Amino acid sequence: MTSSFHPPQRILMGPGPSDISPRVLGALARPTIGHLDPQFIHLMDEVKGLLQYAFQTTNELTLPVSAPGSAGMEACFVNLVSPGDTVIVCQNGVFGGRMKENVERCGATAVMVEDDWGQPVSLDKVEAALQAHPEASVLAFVHAETSTGARSDAAALCALAQQYGALSIVDAVTSLGGIEVSVDAWGADAVYSGTQKCLSCVPGISPVTFSPRAVERIQSREHRVQSWFLDMQLVMGYWGGSSKRAYHHTAPVNALYALHESLIMLEEEGLENAWQRHLRNHLGLVAGLEAMGLTMAVAPKYRLPQLNAVNIPAGVDDAAVRAALLNDFSLEIGAGLGALAGKTWRIGLMGHASSERNVITCLTALESVLGQQGADIASGRALAAARAALAG
Amino acid sequence: MTSSFHPPQRILMGPGPSDISPRVLGALARPTIGHLDPQFIHLMDEVKGLLQYAFQTTNELTLPVSAPGSAGMEACFVNLVSPGDTVIVCQNGVFGGRMKENVERCGATAVMVEDDWGQPVSLDKVEAALQAHPEASVLAFVHAETSTGARSDAAALCALAQQYGALSIVDAVTSLGGIEVSVDAWGADAVYSGTQKCLSCVPGISPVTFSPRAVERIQSREHRVQSWFLDMQLVMGYWGGSSKRAYHHTAPVNALYALHESLIMLEEEGLENAWQRHLRNHLGLVAGLEAMGLTMAVAPKYRLPQLNAVNIPAGVDDAAVRAALLNDFSLEIGAGLGALAGKTWRIGLMGHASSERNVITCLTALESVLGQQGADIASGRALAAARAALAG
Repeated sequence: MTSSFHPPQRILMGPGPSDISPRVLGALARPTIGHLDPQFIHLMDEVKGLLQYAFQTTNELTLPVSAPGSAGMEACFVNLVSPGDTVIVCQNGVFGGRMKENVERCGATAVMVEDDWGQPVSLDKVEAALQAHPEASVLAFVHAETSTGARSDAAALCALAQQYGALSIVDAVTSLGGIEVSVDAWGADAVYSGTQKCLSCVPGISPVTFSPRAVERIQSREHRVQSWFLDMQLVMGYWGGSSKRAYHHTAPVNALYALHESLIMLEEEGLENAWQRHLRNHLGLVAGLEAMGLTMAVAPKYRLPQLNAVNIPAGVDDAAVRAALLNDFSLEIGAGLGALAGKTWRIGLMGHASSERNVITCLTALESVLGQQGADIASGRALAAARAALAG
Repeated sequence: MTSSFHPPQRILMGPGPSDISPRVLGALARPTIGHLDPQFIHLMDEVKGLLQYAFQTTNELTLPVSAPGSAGMEACFVNLVSPGDTVIVCQNGVFGGRMKENVERCGATAVMVEDDWGQPVSLDKVEAALQAHPEASVLAFVHAETSTGARSDAAALCALAQQYGALSIVDAVTSLGGIEVSVDAWGADAVYSGTQKCLSCVPGISPVTFSPRAVERIQSREHRVQSWFLDMQLVMGYWGGSSKRAYHHTAPVNALYALHESLIMLEEEGLENAWQRHLRNHLGLVAGLEAMGLTMAVAPKYRLPQLNAVNIPAGVDDAAVRAALLNDFSLEIGAGLGALAGKTWRIGLMGHASSERNVITCLTALESVLGQQGADIASGRALAAARAALAG
């Protein structure tokens, strides 16, 4: 017979999932009700309103896709891209590459705009691509590259898309709730996120929002959306504004309880306060890391406060350090991904995990483990530097 | 400010979600750990083994898709069907129609074999279609039609597919855990299910299994799978047998805790015992309903014990009865779906909800509500009839 699983209590400072508040876990475990129960329909309305707040949008088509962020990404592409289309895809990390996969699997052509990993998307290159490809119907980019910790200028990129008559698809998986995501002010057309990053909810759900222009594109499609599950014209029948909700698929009821609660916590704190908290803890962490003699992989002005990419010092065993943090401190940090595997660590300070306590814990644990590994670091300085920055 | 959501405690006797054991809700709320944490990888191995038991298979490619049953359906079609293929699709309810949508969105041709709603799939018609379409590469059918409560002969249908050189895709969303699903003995090639029916887990996950023949078909595809999220060649890198797990998407960690616990409960009870329990409670419910003067929509030999379609008596207000059951008894039963909307109720006895207590509660509540509605029923006989059948 198999035994019940009792997971350890981790401190989740990787690239997500992040630490989850007991309030959210408590909501998750409330009694399941039917996905067409009037009380559940009421919850759906509230989730929609709370997501509109988090996204800073009045978009009617704002809802949580019943699957992880990768499916949210796919929902944006399969609904807005048709075979034969041209899509400009910006790549400065892993997730731009995934966008390219999505475009090609829609039977469209991806025109790639490439920047070095760790750099933001270049506005000049994007404008040149839009000029060279007037047929491009969509510009797609990642706001916060989870694989590198770099932030791109979403407002300027969305404005470029508008200027050249393309719709914008924005990956806000790691940004939503941690830094400013202002869908309406940007004029973004399709934005997807994930629940397990700065919203500090359980993984498995992908909030998305579509502008009226995007909805118009969807409604005027000539080619059927290739995914039945992600076809927004069908999903709208269940999540749409009408009082009559048409069954499409069975919603992940309990995960939506959790999302509802995590969004309430965001509403209670206030978006701007949440952004400030992420920034303050980031500055504390960086001050501590630099006082230890470590260096950051991304230039200061492009750093994501919620995902800190740190260069692994020469001669240090990447996997051994992460294993020691996990085994001795129950602390998870992220490995490098793709081109940065073995070169960086990714230290998340996302959502509920973005706390002074976690900054202190992480610095202490990392200094201890690096010391045991014989790394050439400056000892005993990190906490004072972090505390000064946190107070600053 | 939005308030926390405190759902009512329902008795879930609709078409799913079904009642969930406190054990499963408890597992759901355990602390989240990373999707690449060694302890989570261990859990994944156990979930795979438990799903192989539930499906009665040794298929290596057996895993929970990180999305609801509709996505599990889509995973089977997009991986096994290529543009230009011919697929024979059996339709005897709503879900066969959804299969047709999937086939067409893959750029393939669906040859429909249609039977009346409430009837099983006709073996003769299927064999005639296979003979008329030797080019057909897949036969797809629904084992347990959730929209009608009818069971088809999965073993015979899979055998026909094999005989004519087609792969079989089987919808076992409502059957798994409630009636026999013997993937290897049937020789089924791709089978998908859902967690929120007879497994009595939270909605949002879809267990799937693929035979070695199906895996071979996937690996020899010339046309890329149109869904990145559901591409089994990529998903295998995370769920596959190797010790090195490649990141594909962030697994719904907590939902998999819950699935693990619900599968342990199935293992503890034993599959055959679970099937017997579903059958016994079904016979009790039917005896009670018939003693009340109600009639079943499906002939006895094709009835699903876990989903009981009852004809709505003439002159009774469908919606008013369901609303009274929900409001006065906190009891959810299902409305008719598709062609059967307004004609039948669907009373689920699925998983944890398949209990003598629920049989008695449902009969008592239904008799009370129908009596208040002035329906022409025989009063005071249902419980004795049900108890005799339950004891029998």
